[in-house]
Amino acid sequence: MIEVEAQIVIKRNGASFLCPQKVKLLVEVQKQGSLNAAAKALGISYQHAWNLVSELNRAGAEPLVTKQRGGPNGGGTALTAYGERLLNDYRSIGETVNNLIAPVNVELNL
Amino acid sequence: MIEVEAQIVIKRNGASFLCPQKVKLLVEVQKQGSLNAAAKALGISYQHAWNLVSELNRAGAEPLVTKQRGGPNGGGTALTAYGERLLNDYRSIGETVNNLIAPVNVELNL
Repeated sequence: MIEVEAQIVIKRNGASFLCPQKVKLLVEVQKQGSLNAAAKALGISYQHAWNLVSELNRAGAEPLVTKQRGGPNGGGTALTAYGERLLNDYRSIGETVNNLIAPVNVELNL
Repeated sequence: MIEVEAQIVIKRNGASFLCPQKVKLLVEVQKQGSLNAAAKALGISYQHAWNLVSELNRAGAEPLVTKQRGGPNGGGTALTAYGERLLNDYRSIGETVNNLIAPVNVELNL
């Protein structure tokens, strides 16, 4: 069976902003509360994860990810309210688009 | 300006078959006539390119990529007729889907 799935890329001013790879990282940061743990969960280096976060924070209207220093757990990394909102928007756009293309999902004889 | 773009993943029997990364490799193989040159053009290792081609050739109904031995240029790598057809189908599905989602591309206030 052949199935078409759309992965969403959101562009800002012509440049890629939110793509599946960066969204996966945001989801892991949200889940793990730590960039190091998020990088490990995705099998990428901390440096690579940090670069992706830097790109996101520079490209957005505000930062999406923030370092939290101190506190009972010695700090960590979390999504900002803006980051949480973009993640929700990204998911609902993905659902909308995949509902729109459902009619394309006929047997395609590939 | 916010813009939504759909990247197409075609699944066969529930597993990813054609994704943007593999399609980029097919396009380069078509253009360069050599897997080594295609890998270089994409900045990936020959081994990684070869693994992607092996996955494609195993996952398809027939091989998409073929080694050509001998000949005036000492052989090379090319798409099969099936590979050419899938590449065209992938592109036209991508156009169809992105036309469908054009109405989603309103100012999204992200």
